[in-house]
Amino acid sequence: MNVLVKNPPSIALLNEAAMGAARQRQARLTKPPGSLGRLEELSVQLAGITGKELPSFREKAVIVMAGDHGVTQEGVSAYPAEVTRQMVLNFLDGGAAINVLARHAEARVVVVDMGIASDLPPHPQLIVRKIGYGTANMTRGPAMTWAQAEDAVAAGLEIMSGLVREGVELVGTGEMGIGNTTAASAITAVLCGAPVSDVVGRGTGIDDEGLARKVAAVKQALAINEPDPEDPLEVVAKVGGFEIAGLAGVILGGAAAGVPVVIDGFITGTAALVAARLDRGAKAYMIASHQSVEIGHRLILDELGLSPLLNLELRLGEGTGAALAMHLIDAATRALAEMATFDEAGVSDRSD
Amino acid sequence: MNVLVKNPPSIALLNEAAMGAARQRQARLTKPPGSLGRLEELSVQLAGITGKELPSFREKAVIVMAGDHGVTQEGVSAYPAEVTRQMVLNFLDGGAAINVLARHAEARVVVVDMGIASDLPPHPQLIVRKIGYGTANMTRGPAMTWAQAEDAVAAGLEIMSGLVREGVELVGTGEMGIGNTTAASAITAVLCGAPVSDVVGRGTGIDDEGLARKVAAVKQALAINEPDPEDPLEVVAKVGGFEIAGLAGVILGGAAAGVPVVIDGFITGTAALVAARLDRGAKAYMIASHQSVEIGHRLILDELGLSPLLNLELRLGEGTGAALAMHLIDAATRALAEMATFDEAGVSDRSD
Repeated sequence: MNVLVKNPPSIALLNEAAMGAARQRQARLTKPPGSLGRLEELSVQLAGITGKELPSFREKAVIVMAGDHGVTQEGVSAYPAEVTRQMVLNFLDGGAAINVLARHAEARVVVVDMGIASDLPPHPQLIVRKIGYGTANMTRGPAMTWAQAEDAVAAGLEIMSGLVREGVELVGTGEMGIGNTTAASAITAVLCGAPVSDVVGRGTGIDDEGLARKVAAVKQALAINEPDPEDPLEVVAKVGGFEIAGLAGVILGGAAAGVPVVIDGFITGTAALVAARLDRGAKAYMIASHQSVEIGHRLILDELGLSPLLNLELRLGEGTGAALAMHLIDAATRALAEMATFDEAGVSDRSD
Repeated sequence: MNVLVKNPPSIALLNEAAMGAARQRQARLTKPPGSLGRLEELSVQLAGITGKELPSFREKAVIVMAGDHGVTQEGVSAYPAEVTRQMVLNFLDGGAAINVLARHAEARVVVVDMGIASDLPPHPQLIVRKIGYGTANMTRGPAMTWAQAEDAVAAGLEIMSGLVREGVELVGTGEMGIGNTTAASAITAVLCGAPVSDVVGRGTGIDDEGLARKVAAVKQALAINEPDPEDPLEVVAKVGGFEIAGLAGVILGGAAAGVPVVIDGFITGTAALVAARLDRGAKAYMIASHQSVEIGHRLILDELGLSPLLNLELRLGEGTGAALAMHLIDAATRALAEMATFDEAGVSDRSD
C-alpha cells in the first residue's frame, strides 16, 4: 500500500518557455555573456521551476526533520543519542546554527519530530509526525517497517503541501539525528553501488575506533538486510531513518508544487537521491547548496548530477548550507530582474 | 618621492587575544567543533582584524575603481574601450550587476574614476581621482610614470581613509576597465614568475585570434619594459593600470585601519598581490571572495595563500564576487555571536 504508488505526486518537466525567456534576458544584460557563471544557470533553472521569466522568492522555509537511530547502540557517534532531542529543543529556542543562518536568510525554520526517541513538550513551532520512537538498530534487522517508511514519506509530502498552501515559495532541507550519517552511509553505499569504506566519514567527529565501528555497523546492516538497490523505499526502510524518508517526501512534494528545493549536505543528499529514484523528474527542482566534508556527499552529488554552490567545508547539517545558499538564489534572481540591458544603459555590446 | 616610503601606512599584526577568545567561543557553541568549517576560520580572522571577540559589520562599501588601458589598441578585448565609460555611467545609474549585488549585500557602491579616457559629467556618487586619460600602451613602453603610480596608490589610501572616517567597517574591492585583464596578466606573470601563457585568459570573452594577440601583447610589454619582480610598484607602473594601483592603496589603507578587505576576482587579485608585496602584513586582512574563471586568478590566490569562499564560475569583476561574499562574512559573525553555547542550551557535549 505504497502511498507513492497510490497517489504519486505529479512532477512536471521544467517550463522551457520561461527558461528561454530568462536565457534571452541574461544575454541582453550589461555584462559579458555568461560572466555571472553559476548565477546565470541558476536563474534559468529557477525560471523553469516556477514558470516565470523573472522568478522571485519572498516566503522561504527550512524544514528540519529530526529522528533517532537505533544504530547508535553500536557506538557510531561522537555524541550521545539524547543530543537529538536536546538539539531539537535548541532549534525551538532559536539558539542553533540553523536558527541564526535561517534568520540571516530571512527564512523560517520548520521543526518536525519524525521519530525522536522521547516525547517533546508541545511547542507552537514544532510539528509532530512521529513515526516511531527512534528506528530499530539496523545491524540487527530493518530500521523500520514498510508501513513506517511509507508513512514517513507521506508525512513529508503533506508537510510540504501545507507550507505551499501557506505561501512558501522556496524550501531548504535540514535534519537532526544522532547516528544519521551512519544511515546515510548505508543508503549511499546501496544506491550509488559504492564500497562502504568510500562512503563512511567521521560524522560529528568520531575517532578512529569509532570510525571502524561505524564501517562495521554499515557492513553488518547491509549484510543482514540485503536492501534491493532498485527499490529506493526498501532501502530507506531497511537502513534509513524517519527524517530521511520524510525529507524524501518533502523534496517530492516541493517538486510537485513547482517549488525549488535546496539540498543541504550528506543526509539530505541521501533523501534527495531517494526522491530522484522514486521520481526522476524531481532532480530538476533541486539546488545543491554546498559540498560537505562527509566523503559520501561527493558521490551523491555526482550521482544526481548536481554541482554545489558553496564549498565551505561544512559538516553540521541542520540545513545550514541550504540557508546560506538562499542568499545566492536571491542574488541570481535579483541580477536577472534588476540589471539594466545594453539598450537601457546605452552600453555598447561586443565588438565581434 | 614614493608616498609609501614617505608615509608607510602602519599595518598591525592580527589581535591574538581576540582570535583566542573567538576560537574558545566557537568551541562552546552548540555544534560539533569545526563543523561550520570555513565560517569558523573566518569568524576568528575577523576577530583578529577588528580586535573584537564578536565582530560585526554594519556599514559596508564596495569600492569600484575604473580606468582605461592604452593596450586596448592591440585588440586584446572583446569590447570596445568606450565600454569602460559606459559601464561607469551604468554603475552611477544603478543598473549594473555590482549595483544589484551590493544592494543585496546592503553595501554602498563607491565609484572612482582613476583614469577613464574621457571626462564624465559630475555625479554625487562619483569620486574623480583621475591620474590620467587612460594608461599608455604598455607594448610600446611603461603604462604610466613613477609619479602616476605613486599618486594612484596614494589616492586609494586616501579614499579608504575617508570611508573609514565615514564609518565603513567592511570593504569590497571592484574594478572596471576594458583591457585590464591584459594588464593583470602581465602583473601576475611578473610577480608570480609564471609563463605568460599560464596567466592569460579570455577576459570578457575574446576569441582565439584575440587571445593570441593578448598573449603577444603581454609578452611584448614584458620584453620592452623589463619590470623588476622585486619592485611591485615598478611592476604596476610599467604594466599595470590606474585602477589596479589605486586598489592596492585601498587594500593597504583598509589593512592599516583594521578593516577587512574582500578581494574580488583576477584584477583585484593583482592589486592584492601588489599590496602584499608592498607590505606583507596586508595579507592577513584579506578575504578571498571567489575563484574566477580567469586562469591567472588561481596562481594569485595560491601565491597569497588565500582560499576563496565561493566558486561560482564568475568572470565579471566590478566587485560582484566581493559583494556576494559579504553575506557569508555576516553569516560567520552572526553564528559566532548569536548561537547558544552547550551550557546555555543544556545540550550534552561530546561523549569522548
